[in-house]
Amino acid sequence: MDTGPVSRSPRQPAAALLLVVAVALASAARSDEPSPPPTRGLAALVAASSPADWRPLDDENTLYLDLASGRVVIELAPLLAPLHVANIKALVREGYFDGLAIYRAQDNWVVQWGDPDEQRQVRDAKTSLSPEFTVEVDADFPFRPLPDRDGYAPQVGFSNGFPVGMDPATHRAWLTHCYAAVGVARGNEPDSGSGTDLYAVIGHAPRHLDRNITLVGRVMQGMELLSTLPRGPAPMGFYEQSKQQVPIRSVRIASDLPAAERSQLEVMRTDTALFAELVESRRNRLDDWSRVPAGYTEVCNIPIVVRPRAP
Amino acid sequence: MDTGPVSRSPRQPAAALLLVVAVALASAARSDEPSPPPTRGLAALVAASSPADWRPLDDENTLYLDLASGRVVIELAPLLAPLHVANIKALVREGYFDGLAIYRAQDNWVVQWGDPDEQRQVRDAKTSLSPEFTVEVDADFPFRPLPDRDGYAPQVGFSNGFPVGMDPATHRAWLTHCYAAVGVARGNEPDSGSGTDLYAVIGHAPRHLDRNITLVGRVMQGMELLSTLPRGPAPMGFYEQSKQQVPIRSVRIASDLPAAERSQLEVMRTDTALFAELVESRRNRLDDWSRVPAGYTEVCNIPIVVRPRAP
Repeated sequence: MDTGPVSRSPRQPAAALLLVVAVALASAARSDEPSPPPTRGLAALVAASSPADWRPLDDENTLYLDLASGRVVIELAPLLAPLHVANIKALVREGYFDGLAIYRAQDNWVVQWGDPDEQRQVRDAKTSLSPEFTVEVDADFPFRPLPDRDGYAPQVGFSNGFPVGMDPATHRAWLTHCYAAVGVARGNEPDSGSGTDLYAVIGHAPRHLDRNITLVGRVMQGMELLSTLPRGPAPMGFYEQSKQQVPIRSVRIASDLPAAERSQLEVMRTDTALFAELVESRRNRLDDWSRVPAGYTEVCNIPIVVRPRAP
Repeated sequence: MDTGPVSRSPRQPAAALLLVVAVALASAARSDEPSPPPTRGLAALVAASSPADWRPLDDENTLYLDLASGRVVIELAPLLAPLHVANIKALVREGYFDGLAIYRAQDNWVVQWGDPDEQRQVRDAKTSLSPEFTVEVDADFPFRPLPDRDGYAPQVGFSNGFPVGMDPATHRAWLTHCYAAVGVARGNEPDSGSGTDLYAVIGHAPRHLDRNITLVGRVMQGMELLSTLPRGPAPMGFYEQSKQQVPIRSVRIASDLPAAERSQLEVMRTDTALFAELVESRRNRLDDWSRVPAGYTEVCNIPIVVRPRAP
């Protein structure tokens, strides 16, 4: 067994493997040179946070995907896909998804839902949209860049709690395909996605899809209800038989529900000094477990912290 | 619904989302300048492969983790963790894991197994080992570098079918924490891992763990048996109650079994022209679905193809 201190807990024989919850270390500052501030780990940062370090989910742009197993909470990012977000909300409000199903789960790739039989009619929403693989942003676009170079984008960072890519030369931005990203499935034609079929990333970030398909948001709670679904036996993870499909009870917009039925959640803001410290703590871990600081991090390896709102 | 051609298949309304199985496109070469060769997608490359593009799994270094749900096949990489691979094989051969359990599953992180009660005695294997976070390699070390820059390592690439990092300046190499990587849990002390507690990566690659813990191999088949396990309700995904744990029927080394009981698998070699073409096809996708080639890829985003051996 492990001889480290964590091995004393019977149920956590190697708990230190996950020292994401890093121990705060005071760095001994030398007066003759600038020294970086002490780096606290995630748990310490959350404990030290103030109400201003958090924002509530935007109920007008938050979907509840209700399954028999529980609720998946998805926050949409209207700044980064305005047409698609509006159309998905129109689909939700006409009840498009109610009674449909998750019809695909492919390991290390995506879970996908919509109408497996392609029979459901769209009433008022649009059935085709201009692609929003990237969108033009102005100087007011909230963006906190990561310090490290990214292979897939000129720049990456966070916007209002969402991981994004950015091209300063063209003033265009896009949501990135990190774990839990939610996007609009499409056929070969760029305008063939309307939001009737959505997917969530359940594996390693498929960043090569960035700028090739419209992402609309991110699962903020309930990812495990999607990530643990049985993988589909057919090619690309499709469920071959209807009994394998996972029924969708309903999809609703949070603001359409009475307060008592809403999931009261808040997300750590990404434009704060606290978040900057979190990023630095991931770039260079200073805890009792880590030995070699990476000196680097990537946009899909920074935790987006979500928690219940204080009452 | 999608208006693309794939929407004709009732069960695949947005199948093109996963055009990993890319359509081969002939690139129109202009005679006055060098042109890259046409890039074929994964399915076309597999179809075009010859027996020399594959190698059988090394049965002497392949573990079968047998669960009620099926078999997880793990290939060990003795070149990259000789002490730990030898000790894990010693543990397996003394029956250490038989009847133990998977006791942890944390979403977007790891599944971990061993003795949740820390009662099982180690007979002949070692209980402490020098860390093999990196190992020294010589000029004969098989290594196919990726063309792209990596944020976490001076160089990344593949060695005998395993994703690896490399520091040419120090002649040291290490397995990287990609999806399906298998490692040796440890406590805070670097030598506190012996192989009694192992983990597999089930989410986005936690590359910051590279060089901080000893990886020993990779799940080659059966990942979905681990990745779909219910996430543990306790902190860090531990199962709080023994009834939540997933019993391990046995762990055995392939070469210790009669041929009829072995999983006959082969893996695509990573030192071939075919694999180089696969890498290029992932850097720049040329298919009917993709619109913007990434011009980049990363070591954890290249598929390691495993299939049944031809009889």
